[in-house]
Amino acid sequence: MNLYTLSEIIDKKFSHGEIPPQNIIEEIRSITSKGGYIGLAQIDPTAGNLEFNAKKIAKYIKYSEKIGLDMVIFPELALMGYPIEDTIDRHPLIVRENIKWLKGLAKITKNTTAIVGFVEPREKDAEGKRFYNSAAILQNGKITGIVRKSLLPTYSEFNDYRYIEPSPVVGVQPVETLGKLSRENIQPSNKYLEINGTKYGISICEDCWNNKEFFEKNLYDKDPIEELKEADIFINCSASPTRAKKEQLKHNMLSFISSKYKKPMIYVNQVGAIDNISFDGSSRVFNSKGELIARAKSFEEQFLIVNPKNETGKIYPLTKGLEKSLTEQKVFTLEYESDLERTYKTIVQGIRDYFSKCGFKKAVLGLSGGLDSTVCAVLLADALGKENVFGISMPSKLTSKESKSDAKELAENLGINFTEASIKPMVDTTTDCLNDLFKVVETKWDCRYKNSFTPDNIQARSRAMFLWGISNEFASCIPIATSDKSELYMGYATINGDMSGGFAPIADVPKTKLFAFARWLNSNREEKNAIPEAIILKKPGAELAIDPKTGKTLNAEDALMPYEFLDEIIWRIENKNESYSDLLEAEFVYEKKNKISKEQKIEWLDKFYRRMSTALYKWSILPPSVIVESRSINKSDYRQPITSSKINYKGVNEEEIANSLL
Amino acid sequence: MNLYTLSEIIDKKFSHGEIPPQNIIEEIRSITSKGGYIGLAQIDPTAGNLEFNAKKIAKYIKYSEKIGLDMVIFPELALMGYPIEDTIDRHPLIVRENIKWLKGLAKITKNTTAIVGFVEPREKDAEGKRFYNSAAILQNGKITGIVRKSLLPTYSEFNDYRYIEPSPVVGVQPVETLGKLSRENIQPSNKYLEINGTKYGISICEDCWNNKEFFEKNLYDKDPIEELKEADIFINCSASPTRAKKEQLKHNMLSFISSKYKKPMIYVNQVGAIDNISFDGSSRVFNSKGELIARAKSFEEQFLIVNPKNETGKIYPLTKGLEKSLTEQKVFTLEYESDLERTYKTIVQGIRDYFSKCGFKKAVLGLSGGLDSTVCAVLLADALGKENVFGISMPSKLTSKESKSDAKELAENLGINFTEASIKPMVDTTTDCLNDLFKVVETKWDCRYKNSFTPDNIQARSRAMFLWGISNEFASCIPIATSDKSELYMGYATINGDMSGGFAPIADVPKTKLFAFARWLNSNREEKNAIPEAIILKKPGAELAIDPKTGKTLNAEDALMPYEFLDEIIWRIENKNESYSDLLEAEFVYEKKNKISKEQKIEWLDKFYRRMSTALYKWSILPPSVIVESRSINKSDYRQPITSSKINYKGVNEEEIANSLL
Repeated sequence: MNLYTLSEIIDKKFSHGEIPPQNIIEEIRSITSKGGYIGLAQIDPTAGNLEFNAKKIAKYIKYSEKIGLDMVIFPELALMGYPIEDTIDRHPLIVRENIKWLKGLAKITKNTTAIVGFVEPREKDAEGKRFYNSAAILQNGKITGIVRKSLLPTYSEFNDYRYIEPSPVVGVQPVETLGKLSRENIQPSNKYLEINGTKYGISICEDCWNNKEFFEKNLYDKDPIEELKEADIFINCSASPTRAKKEQLKHNMLSFISSKYKKPMIYVNQVGAIDNISFDGSSRVFNSKGELIARAKSFEEQFLIVNPKNETGKIYPLTKGLEKSLTEQKVFTLEYESDLERTYKTIVQGIRDYFSKCGFKKAVLGLSGGLDSTVCAVLLADALGKENVFGISMPSKLTSKESKSDAKELAENLGINFTEASIKPMVDTTTDCLNDLFKVVETKWDCRYKNSFTPDNIQARSRAMFLWGISNEFASCIPIATSDKSELYMGYATINGDMSGGFAPIADVPKTKLFAFARWLNSNREEKNAIPEAIILKKPGAELAIDPKTGKTLNAEDALMPYEFLDEIIWRIENKNESYSDLLEAEFVYEKKNKISKEQKIEWLDKFYRRMSTALYKWSILPPSVIVESRSINKSDYRQPITSSKINYKGVNEEEIANSLL
Repeated sequence: MNLYTLSEIIDKKFSHGEIPPQNIIEEIRSITSKGGYIGLAQIDPTAGNLEFNAKKIAKYIKYSEKIGLDMVIFPELALMGYPIEDTIDRHPLIVRENIKWLKGLAKITKNTTAIVGFVEPREKDAEGKRFYNSAAILQNGKITGIVRKSLLPTYSEFNDYRYIEPSPVVGVQPVETLGKLSRENIQPSNKYLEINGTKYGISICEDCWNNKEFFEKNLYDKDPIEELKEADIFINCSASPTRAKKEQLKHNMLSFISSKYKKPMIYVNQVGAIDNISFDGSSRVFNSKGELIARAKSFEEQFLIVNPKNETGKIYPLTKGLEKSLTEQKVFTLEYESDLERTYKTIVQGIRDYFSKCGFKKAVLGLSGGLDSTVCAVLLADALGKENVFGISMPSKLTSKESKSDAKELAENLGINFTEASIKPMVDTTTDCLNDLFKVVETKWDCRYKNSFTPDNIQARSRAMFLWGISNEFASCIPIATSDKSELYMGYATINGDMSGGFAPIADVPKTKLFAFARWLNSNREEKNAIPEAIILKKPGAELAIDPKTGKTLNAEDALMPYEFLDEIIWRIENKNESYSDLLEAEFVYEKKNKISKEQKIEWLDKFYRRMSTALYKWSILPPSVIVESRSINKSDYRQPITSSKINYKGVNEEEIANSLL
């Protein structure tokens, strides 16, 4: 058997908590003990759970030792988990504790060098923030050196600079500086880690993202990789989340650096999800020509053995969607096909890790027979196991027979638990109570709406009442918020209703993508066609109200605008920072297929900005979800004051300004 | 009449939208036109509402011109409002627009110089972030210079560095650098603003917070004030929020700088609230000995005229609580008295600005007869007007007669609208429906709790259903979440129930402070004793369940722990970063009065950490609220991964670590 077949056996044993069999260890060792072999420990840590993370790290250190590797490398902040956010500021104990665990890990090392990310406290009165984002070199029972991160991202989902100080120095500093390094006491040390005559230049994540030739625009002045150019091999310990279109950029950038400096590059990435942020793993190694020689799996823990010198490595296939070429700069086409496998794995991993890390096991959700709840049910079944999902069809008097039967059929196809429970008694009682109450209130307040959304919302909230009831009554169970990204942008979701839940799986997936996604799920899951075709074909609508024009239940696109048009607005704003006038001038894909008047376009654009401005509050109380797209409205990724709802997104001309200020 | 009496007349006119009378303008002008007079325009901007902010700025520019001031100074980012957060990244249009408005403002200037904060875009390919946080010097119809912020806070409520680039240069750069400054093209200009022979050294907010002698620990290397030391007078344009214990630090620091450099210091602060952040204003001027010579009002828009050279200025009284000496380093005493006026004004301003900036007018809340909803009702009546508040008593079968009559009495005392609406029909129907549903679910899932909180939560959610119903049915009305800080720390609040609402006024006020606060409100509001004594005296309890031990409704302190003890844990963690073992060793105030066993203390501490760890999700979906204390759990102030719920806050010893890693 070859190295990678043997490795896979070990990985499987480990994942079942078993100790690997001695004969396979021996067989691997016969290959790796020749020297130059390195282990990339692509692990899934839990934020702040030091014992859990340390045990996982220890397992791989001991294994690496057994098979005689030169080195085993862990991701950025592996011991603490990334991101840990403000936790280290309010609870500095866990930073002190992580040092104790780090020293414990050092003690178990022997001949194999381990590189382990941790949070390093700084001296109390040191200038700057209180911590470094560091990686320790552990060898022969001791910590022998420290590497610290210089470039601290603070955009989108990143907030490193809140409590982390940028390192004033690149490369390895001696262990004596642990907890004591400052600008003033940088040691004139060998900045490379030397093992058997090979010099390794170690950097942490963002430190390799500032090449002045590769990027048109640089975020920072300093380029740590340039300062490490005398290395024989580069190492980057990373925690880099998956986002649409990011992989190819990362790949090209790492390849560029390897070929530019003519050094192999070893890149070790975190896998798994921490709250809203999903890391894809896909750790990899390039040779000195910038060619890929090894890549770990995406969205799975893996221990990948490589030898950059003799170019031993295996390239596991990348999740489809990750591989899409960035040079393919095409305009918005509403063709999501190429990104659907990545979307699937990102969300399934996000659900699985959120549940397991919080200690939840079960999910309950409303099945309306519509697309959103349907896709959520499929994802939950795959992430948690079908026996752990309960779908409840909760019809009102407006719910069609088809909605009920579609929901039931879906549940049967998926094999999830299912029941039907009418909300009619609750809606009737609530409506009666509220009507009495409204009569009293309107004696004091003369601002009662002639047409309100109250009846719609009563239905959505009654359903949430059922789901939260089940969550309260059954252990380790949380309800699911099924809102999608398009609807959230429009605030088309009920507070304490469908947008309420313990987790929101598709909050960053636009509606048009969900249609494509449903078809993809039907074709690509083991059980084909779990989603009834009728669900994919029907027009989205919440079945909460009757359209006075048609006498039928109101269609979401009539209440909002065509989803294709809406999703293109969102895409253009998020990806191209387009303004109102840019959008007005652009030719939308929808327009190519449907002739619409300028007035119609203006009406939709106005509606978009008006509704988005008042949806900011809803974004702020959105349950945890998984970031999927290149940009999102997730509050850990994007923050806008709710009180900025009066922004004029159209802009004004100089004359209007002059008149206003007269 | 003196300058300040005359000024107050103008302020009053302005606040009613009136044009000031010519005779008073003339009278002021007779004083101010002698030269050296400067206006501190302490304004309340709305985030991103450029027209609103620009008109306000224009009003004061024109007024300053009329009365012949040398200069009028506005707070940090006055034109945009601070904070604007990620909005400028996703919608760069508003930055381009703010430049147009800035140029419009420049055009209306004549002899009086105006200093106006704005967001400055940078060149597309410039290294670093896309914007500067800048202030423009406007004179004689033109922008004549730009000052940029160098030190960018990124801790607690601050996130400047997310999209703002630190300025590479201190002081004034010529207008030619507008939109074009980079490290490479810094102009060798006069860095001071010169007016009538006086050199002003201008800095923005954090730039004056890094004096190496004053602070024991510095966050940054650079000290911009040191680089401006050749100025005759310092100016600092600021947007500095109120937090417990912050004022005295700020005051001492500004005074220290003035006296150290022997220059007057003019400090202009923003007032008003933007979402969760409440700015106290209290703009001020120190003479060159570091003595206070002028101070604007706290928590009010004001235009304060000063003359630092001849020491003309008026010191308006500081809101009590702001003035508390920082040197008074006393341990936690549960004596909140000194901070209650500040607390009151912070929250009232927070409510008023949130409502007015979002376009809301009315609030509806449940009145339980308990302390939380009572204090909320008082604050809402004061912030919005009693006619705009509707209190609803929503009794269940567990609600005592006293609770109902206390709620009614409170409403009558306050003069707010009031009615009673029983939730019994809703609770009965929901309970019946849920019991049927639970029977089905338990045929599939064997994890039904023997004792659950479902009945408690049904009550809380039925009440929220009423309040949100009213909000949906009546224009510009939002429901209020009444949870307090102590309960939120413990997760002792119902999702979609009492913790749900459009705004949460007391989410950063601990329970023990609320008791003191209620008494303070009774003594210090115009209408004395609006809060019935019975409400203050009763033990907190949500009246959601019966205590099996006593047969009476369950008391919150029995479910949790004594509030005095709980609040001291919170205070020690937030203010002193104490760990589990620190807390165990410390002698709590509660312990001085009540003998408790070590076992009891451990039980409470364990309960605290256990409950806090699982409350993280609730913090993440908390409605907007006002930050009051020096540290909070507000998500714009503190972020911790929800999946970090397994952190071991007790820590472990080396032996345990070694055994774990064996």
